[in-house]
Amino acid sequence: MQGASVTAVAEARLFPPEQLFEFSVRVFTHLGVPEEDARTAATVLQAADLRGIDSHGVARLHSYFELLQMGRIDPKANVTIVRESPSTATVDGGNGLGLVVGPKANAIAMEKADANGSGWVSVRNTNHFGIAGYYVLEALKRDLIGWAMTNTTKLVAPLWGAERMLGTNPIAIAFPGLEEPDIVIDMATTAAAYGKIEIARRAKKLIPPGWAIDRNGAATTDPNAMIDGGAMLPLGSDRDGGGHKGYGLAVMVDVLSAMLSGANWGPFVPPFALRQEMPARSVGKGTGHFFGALRIDAFIDKDEFKRQIDDFIRTLRKTRPAPGTAGPLIPGDPEREAEAIRRREGIPLVGAVVEELRDISKQTGIPL
Amino acid sequence: MQGASVTAVAEARLFPPEQLFEFSVRVFTHLGVPEEDARTAATVLQAADLRGIDSHGVARLHSYFELLQMGRIDPKANVTIVRESPSTATVDGGNGLGLVVGPKANAIAMEKADANGSGWVSVRNTNHFGIAGYYVLEALKRDLIGWAMTNTTKLVAPLWGAERMLGTNPIAIAFPGLEEPDIVIDMATTAAAYGKIEIARRAKKLIPPGWAIDRNGAATTDPNAMIDGGAMLPLGSDRDGGGHKGYGLAVMVDVLSAMLSGANWGPFVPPFALRQEMPARSVGKGTGHFFGALRIDAFIDKDEFKRQIDDFIRTLRKTRPAPGTAGPLIPGDPEREAEAIRRREGIPLVGAVVEELRDISKQTGIPL
Repeated sequence: MQGASVTAVAEARLFPPEQLFEFSVRVFTHLGVPEEDARTAATVLQAADLRGIDSHGVARLHSYFELLQMGRIDPKANVTIVRESPSTATVDGGNGLGLVVGPKANAIAMEKADANGSGWVSVRNTNHFGIAGYYVLEALKRDLIGWAMTNTTKLVAPLWGAERMLGTNPIAIAFPGLEEPDIVIDMATTAAAYGKIEIARRAKKLIPPGWAIDRNGAATTDPNAMIDGGAMLPLGSDRDGGGHKGYGLAVMVDVLSAMLSGANWGPFVPPFALRQEMPARSVGKGTGHFFGALRIDAFIDKDEFKRQIDDFIRTLRKTRPAPGTAGPLIPGDPEREAEAIRRREGIPLVGAVVEELRDISKQTGIPL
Repeated sequence: MQGASVTAVAEARLFPPEQLFEFSVRVFTHLGVPEEDARTAATVLQAADLRGIDSHGVARLHSYFELLQMGRIDPKANVTIVRESPSTATVDGGNGLGLVVGPKANAIAMEKADANGSGWVSVRNTNHFGIAGYYVLEALKRDLIGWAMTNTTKLVAPLWGAERMLGTNPIAIAFPGLEEPDIVIDMATTAAAYGKIEIARRAKKLIPPGWAIDRNGAATTDPNAMIDGGAMLPLGSDRDGGGHKGYGLAVMVDVLSAMLSGANWGPFVPPFALRQEMPARSVGKGTGHFFGALRIDAFIDKDEFKRQIDDFIRTLRKTRPAPGTAGPLIPGDPEREAEAIRRREGIPLVGAVVEELRDISKQTGIPL
């Protein structure tokens, strides 16, 4: 539910998923990423585009392209375990692509879960890892409950703060159903997704109260006031709404991703894109992620668990609907519906993203 | 930050913490709870009263008293491991006091973390366990990162629902500082604490928008409309505010606490107090909890971790304050400050709670 925005792309052109995937693979290999890693990275980007998280798919390829081209990310990075126990590991991503480091670290968590019931991996010296949801879907394939978190470049004010100190620090976790679809929770710890503020700015519309503050720390509904030196608000928005809770969750993600691994945290997480300002100081190595996996049958029979999940889903769907709504969704519904449509009809890309891909194509000679 | 409400007890009488502790121990042993377990249970209640979570301390003793007296909770329950792996366990609480089952299950998680890097314990057939924060503070004593969650009696509507389907399902997690105080996150997954709605009702005041809906599912600021058949709203409140995220977190707590252990979930979690309605059906055994522990030095040197936490705390405290505020707090600040005051001045109890304790005293002959 990380901000699926299928409705906001009316002016978009549709591209077959395979075409964008092959283009991404060729771009990554062109920049020195080994073939297998390039396919992994393109798979993570594709998962975002298919699930309707437009901000995290090929819309980011140009930034990865620039960072790799300038040598700011190592295309051939080694991913190494620097400390481990039967159920935990600390991983150094060698300043590789988060789209490659993330899946490798996640695999270590899953292997430990298979062997010892659970696996928990904190990662330093990595970069932006795409959508958190991708990693927990991988765990579902192995009947594991997957967790994924990452810290990100500062954008968010702590409750009662007037400036950006924390990232949008997303949390994902997923649970498999038997006949019902899986429950997939994938959420930034902010009131709203940054992508929605960007969309409001392009559409010259106001944003709802509770999403943002301006550069003076005052509440604002002007998307420009947030983007130009303001900050996003944590989930809960203000004290009455429980903004201290969203702030607490963002702190939790930062500590698990960065303090446990030795990565940068808070306002010192490196920027994702070239044009963003560099942090005032370095307090660790690169960005941090945190992955977890729990083996279901280490707790209870797998089918019994999944039957209960099915019953839970059906019970929740029968909730009496609030006025003017069709009743509650199950976490993961919007993304799964987006994926069904996009696999059939293609992935919609807005003009600005198509232009960026064309620019990559021109610079590399790889046909789009 | 579970709703510290030190300011709301102006009309209260102060009691020395030791006096309430000894009274609680004698009440529990009077009802057949073994001495050591009674001391554990009283310790958990005292932690709530000291930390300013008035709703979860001796204010609940009368409910425990009734449930034990009527045989609805087994005072001598055995706590057994029904399945385990090197880093996980499923525990059956034997329908004991959650205040006794919780600490024993938490200890299993901590032992597994000491041995294998992490420990994760899902618990069924248990009852209300007090404040989630208690358990993570225990973990801090052993230099472990502790997690605690529990499902609770239904009070909360899923986003776009018009009725109670989920509990307030709290999450706690804590991280130790070196010179700075620990970061302690302890939050219900709702917009506000239920206790605050109760306080507004007693004071005949309105509640802020975003906390509750009435029995028809419409937004309300009338505390009576919530309490009389309405529901609380998840953290984020509505779609714009990210209410689907608070709802997702409540679902996560339910699955980890109940589906993994075989406890009741969602609208079928047993009521905490005698006067509450019984669920429509049973889908498992009792209430469910979930505990976790991560050994810090399984990831990184302990002192290095704590130094980074100190730096993080100092950095966050230096955030430019929002207008009209003194700047951000660190999660755990309000509860730690409440504890410092209450250890010195005593625990404030409102008249209704004192009356309940007097009633217990009268029925048992234990002097208050």
